[in-house]
Amino acid sequence: MSGHATNLRLKLPAICFLLQLFTIILFAVFVRYDQETSARLWHEELSHHNKSNRDNDFYFRYPSFQDVHTMIFIGFGFLMTFLKRYGFGSIAFNFLIAAFAIQWSTLIQGFFHSFHDGKIHIGIESMINADFCSGAVLISFGAVLGKTSPIQLLLMALFEVTLFGINEFVLLSIIGAKDAGGSMTIHTFGAYFGLMVSRVLYRPQLEKSRQREGSVYHSDLFAMIGTIYLWLFWPSFNSAITAHGDDQQRTVMNTYFSLAASTLATFATSALVNGEGKLDMVHIQNAALAGGVVVGTSGEMMLTPFGAMIAGFLAGLVSTLGFKFLTPVLDSRLKIQDTCGVHNLHGMPGVLGALLGALVAALATQDVYGDGMADVFPLIADGSRTATYQGTCQFFALLITLGFAVVGGSLVGATLKIRSLGSPPDTQCFEDQIYWEVPEDHQDGYMPAVNSEDPERSASV
Amino acid sequence: MSGHATNLRLKLPAICFLLQLFTIILFAVFVRYDQETSARLWHEELSHHNKSNRDNDFYFRYPSFQDVHTMIFIGFGFLMTFLKRYGFGSIAFNFLIAAFAIQWSTLIQGFFHSFHDGKIHIGIESMINADFCSGAVLISFGAVLGKTSPIQLLLMALFEVTLFGINEFVLLSIIGAKDAGGSMTIHTFGAYFGLMVSRVLYRPQLEKSRQREGSVYHSDLFAMIGTIYLWLFWPSFNSAITAHGDDQQRTVMNTYFSLAASTLATFATSALVNGEGKLDMVHIQNAALAGGVVVGTSGEMMLTPFGAMIAGFLAGLVSTLGFKFLTPVLDSRLKIQDTCGVHNLHGMPGVLGALLGALVAALATQDVYGDGMADVFPLIADGSRTATYQGTCQFFALLITLGFAVVGGSLVGATLKIRSLGSPPDTQCFEDQIYWEVPEDHQDGYMPAVNSEDPERSASV
Amino acid sequence: MSGHATNLRLKLPAICFLLQLFTIILFAVFVRYDQETSARLWHEELSHHNKSNRDNDFYFRYPSFQDVHTMIFIGFGFLMTFLKRYGFGSIAFNFLIAAFAIQWSTLIQGFFHSFHDGKIHIGIESMINADFCSGAVLISFGAVLGKTSPIQLLLMALFEVTLFGINEFVLLSIIGAKDAGGSMTIHTFGAYFGLMVSRVLYRPQLEKSRQREGSVYHSDLFAMIGTIYLWLFWPSFNSAITAHGDDQQRTVMNTYFSLAASTLATFATSALVNGEGKLDMVHIQNAALAGGVVVGTSGEMMLTPFGAMIAGFLAGLVSTLGFKFLTPVLDSRLKIQDTCGVHNLHGMPGVLGALLGALVAALATQDVYGDGMADVFPLIADGSRTATYQGTCQFFALLITLGFAVVGGSLVGATLKIRSLGSPPDTQCFEDQIYWEVPEDHQDGYMPAVNSEDPERSASV
Repeated sequence: MSGHATNLRLKLPAICFLLQLFTIILFAVFVRYDQETSARLWHEELSHHNKSNRDNDFYFRYPSFQDVHTMIFIGFGFLMTFLKRYGFGSIAFNFLIAAFAIQWSTLIQGFFHSFHDGKIHIGIESMINADFCSGAVLISFGAVLGKTSPIQLLLMALFEVTLFGINEFVLLSIIGAKDAGGSMTIHTFGAYFGLMVSRVLYRPQLEKSRQREGSVYHSDLFAMIGTIYLWLFWPSFNSAITAHGDDQQRTVMNTYFSLAASTLATFATSALVNGEGKLDMVHIQNAALAGGVVVGTSGEMMLTPFGAMIAGFLAGLVSTLGFKFLTPVLDSRLKIQDTCGVHNLHGMPGVLGALLGALVAALATQDVYGDGMADVFPLIADGSRTATYQGTCQFFALLITLGFAVVGGSLVGATLKIRSLGSPPDTQCFEDQIYWEVPEDHQDGYMPAVNSEDPERSASV
Repeated sequence: MSGHATNLRLKLPAICFLLQLFTIILFAVFVRYDQETSARLWHEELSHHNKSNRDNDFYFRYPSFQDVHTMIFIGFGFLMTFLKRYGFGSIAFNFLIAAFAIQWSTLIQGFFHSFHDGKIHIGIESMINADFCSGAVLISFGAVLGKTSPIQLLLMALFEVTLFGINEFVLLSIIGAKDAGGSMTIHTFGAYFGLMVSRVLYRPQLEKSRQREGSVYHSDLFAMIGTIYLWLFWPSFNSAITAHGDDQQRTVMNTYFSLAASTLATFATSALVNGEGKLDMVHIQNAALAGGVVVGTSGEMMLTPFGAMIAGFLAGLVSTLGFKFLTPVLDSRLKIQDTCGVHNLHGMPGVLGALLGALVAALATQDVYGDGMADVFPLIADGSRTATYQGTCQFFALLITLGFAVVGGSLVGATLKIRSLGSPPDTQCFEDQIYWEVPEDHQDGYMPAVNSEDPERSASV
Repeated sequence: MSGHATNLRLKLPAICFLLQLFTIILFAVFVRYDQETSARLWHEELSHHNKSNRDNDFYFRYPSFQDVHTMIFIGFGFLMTFLKRYGFGSIAFNFLIAAFAIQWSTLIQGFFHSFHDGKIHIGIESMINADFCSGAVLISFGAVLGKTSPIQLLLMALFEVTLFGINEFVLLSIIGAKDAGGSMTIHTFGAYFGLMVSRVLYRPQLEKSRQREGSVYHSDLFAMIGTIYLWLFWPSFNSAITAHGDDQQRTVMNTYFSLAASTLATFATSALVNGEGKLDMVHIQNAALAGGVVVGTSGEMMLTPFGAMIAGFLAGLVSTLGFKFLTPVLDSRLKIQDTCGVHNLHGMPGVLGALLGALVAALATQDVYGDGMADVFPLIADGSRTATYQGTCQFFALLITLGFAVVGGSLVGATLKIRSLGSPPDTQCFEDQIYWEVPEDHQDGYMPAVNSEDPERSASV
């Protein structure tokens, strides 16, 4: 049924083996355990610096890491299983590209952030950052879900991780912007990058696959596994790499309240925009999460709980309205086919979150932050910039991110147009059968069987 | 198909927006970061009291918090998806009312427990307590599942959280009872409150919806996601706010063994009471959890591992027998329609747990507790009461809780009878279609389709 | 439909009650809180040894414990729900036998490892070890899934836990082998034990049930819940009982990279061995996890990140090839019917992991480990053996484990052949209906209904 081009028998093994082999060689040459992970180095720390094992960063960050890890592989993975005939591809390609992206981003981010004496030194924090970076790739995946081959996705991950690393380096290390939960580096970047890829890969004939673009009852429940886990662990996501102590706790709390408020806003708006007052699962699955995105930059700041709630409320509102009114327009006018609506969940709330971060940074005062200023805004604390200037830098960081995402996404999208990458035909989008051995109940021409001792009998019903 | 009354287009947005707005205003006026969450205050702690970031309560409680959070949103949410046609309502209304309840209970509990200088100060412990309180609301939700509109549920949450706060204040602060895992404050209160609401909202014509009250094969598997997560994380639930050190570890261990024993008791009893010796998923999904409820009060005490096992074993037994023999009687004789059987999982095991707590408290001796007495029973340790008196107080705490639950549930149930709250008609209970846009395979008159390239063809099969 | 023998009405309750009662009595006689769990003892520690609550092992190990706990009950449980008509048995018998095994192994392991003054002292570490031991039983369960009654499974758990304890004692305490993540004690032992049980219980007529041995579309998605959670938390599994500090962090990191590489190897190999280049869910669900198994012994050692990747890559490759080429041969030639393919996921990768552990141990040098040698190889650090000798011991530990597993599995398999244990007939394997009340949509002769107001009408379609 599917043409030659989508037969991946040699192509997929080839690219997986090549990428993995290349990564292993680079790891062998460059990557080493850091001071807290190496047996010798950590025990030198213990004896020379009067530390105890409790001081190992592992105990400050590992629970957060595992929550982030769950978000990446369960959260994003199941969120995308809402499609009735693309559950395998959603959960498993998510798995594949994230498993590659965490390795590749360890290298890329390592070169930019922990390259000393010719080696990259890694530990628990690099693992969190690698998961973060793969989050951006998975956001982009959401925009092209069901319309791309696993080979295209692996190549997208390869390029996107690299660009992510450069953009992040510019923002955090050169401009000195703060973005612990990644409103800019992860959400804005991932969303607009993916939307541009989708734009370049525009399929005018996608109507031929529209009957598969919806959900069935149980696929919506699988998707809710993803939604709820993302919602639950977003506080860990935003706080995973903030400074120890009050910073982690404050970020958690701000995110918690922002998410709660965005949930109420989503239910309210979903009922309001539906002609019959009925709720729409697409909104609940996605827009309720906008509260996590919108405090990705400002969550570690002294945002105040009610400030977090207002932010979350607005994000839920804007995101739901986006699903209702903007997604159809993006498709029909701008030729951007955004399968999961990442513009609504990550794009707009990411931009809002970046602006909010700029505002809250500009309002920072010594009176409110006290000695904690050094953790949140080290450049303000050490007198090298004012709060207003920090806010301005935050704003420019957003513009730079948008630039990297749009230009990068366009170029990568153009690369992915190469015919031999196994992209599905327009008639076979959102369909697992093209890349997967599927069970009988999912094959073409399947007739739901009478359960019976004699399975052959069913066919004759 | 559904009448005007159930069209929520204006009502649901109105109540969500109002509740959220009102909450934000109260937060703005009253709620502030506590000493461990505020940048300035924590850094003052660090410098003035020779503390380190490791001492921040975040590192003692955040992993437990995330487990509790998972129980509330995944555990309770998926446990209720067992209904064949109410999966959306189960998981999503659970989400909605818990998202509101955690905000509202932060205010209510804050007024009672952390109101100083005109402000409520919040941190990780208030987040755990807010989740606990929403747990009580979700237990009540289980009793009325499928028979109430989201508007009724939000109002129930508003009132129940308030009463929960008062009851908890009386128990913990006035009577000096101990109830770290909430056998009384959460389970007994939530169950009897919900049962009374269900009693007041009794539907004599519910037979018209009975064909939807069961499960399908995969909805029972979704429900098991909820069950297993509740079972796994109950040790974290019971230990989340106990004292640091031995108390948290001991509570975890007692709960772990109690749950294991209640699981074996449930399988045994389920096979025994079935005519053909077959196991019943309803029992496994619910009664196996009774071991967590029954040590909610005594889990932090020196219960001993085998004591925990006996308690769990009895709870599993009683709970399974309740499903088999008591639930039908509650319905037919007492006019209490208990959709999820919360009387069996939370009601009876909660009461048992309260009694067990009174007994174990009365048996406390200095020899067994040593200097740890101050953490578990501060009023015994400082000599202001005897163990016997503590046990007596525990017993009266149970009676007070039952009183609050029964009276409060009746009054709130009466309030929820107001016609315009969008309650479903008797013929449309346990049905998602009334409040949700549902996929094609879930709509009335849907014919399971032959999977095919041509979706129109299916209709003619 | 099913014969008398499979009616468990009295047999299952009898064995559950007996085992639980017996366990409670042994706990009452022998089991006590350890120094960190007892109120008196821990507070003596606090005052006499200048400790703080932060030093309680609970805060070093509880997050890892909860991850392991999730793997045992969600991971293993859902992984096995891939069967189209055995979802209840998979998730619930997993639940039952693990709930028993954690209790029983607390006793067995306690007698071997923490028996002092006539009492077994337990705490967080014994809980982790108990979960580990039940992991071995669940691996064996995978080999006999769908072909055994819950009574047989409970008896298997009773015997296997006992043998596990002996084997583990020989390996760790007598031979001085290291195996923190259980490549030998858990995976190799559990797999070959289960395969021998399956061999002894060989069913020549299993063809009669083959039509039920596959999956349906949604059962494969349920199985992916198990897969992803196992994958996510395997770093916690391998590090849960390693030494504090660098050891835990290093083990986590090694496992993380090994798993990522095995995922790419699995996707590559799966497409390669399929005639049409299509991916196979069975491979993704299982072989992608081989990376966790293969570093079970060496994960805590200075394996290096790229060493972990090579190991994981080979494990994923071997495991996928095993599913494709070896499983059919085991069945047809060796009469080993391995329902879940545990030989591919746990058997071969376990043996590989043991060999890798021997190799890495033999290569240990003071230069690389520094003062950390005492944590990883205490017998090398204190001069009582050389690295080469440690490696040799590791190798013999593998042989001993294989011996215990093969002999033990054969004997236990023979015991389980007793007729009255309720084993399903050959025509009713992989079928929930024999032991479970199942919903209407899962019963024999069920006709998928038109959703309708009038459920009776459906029958006449």
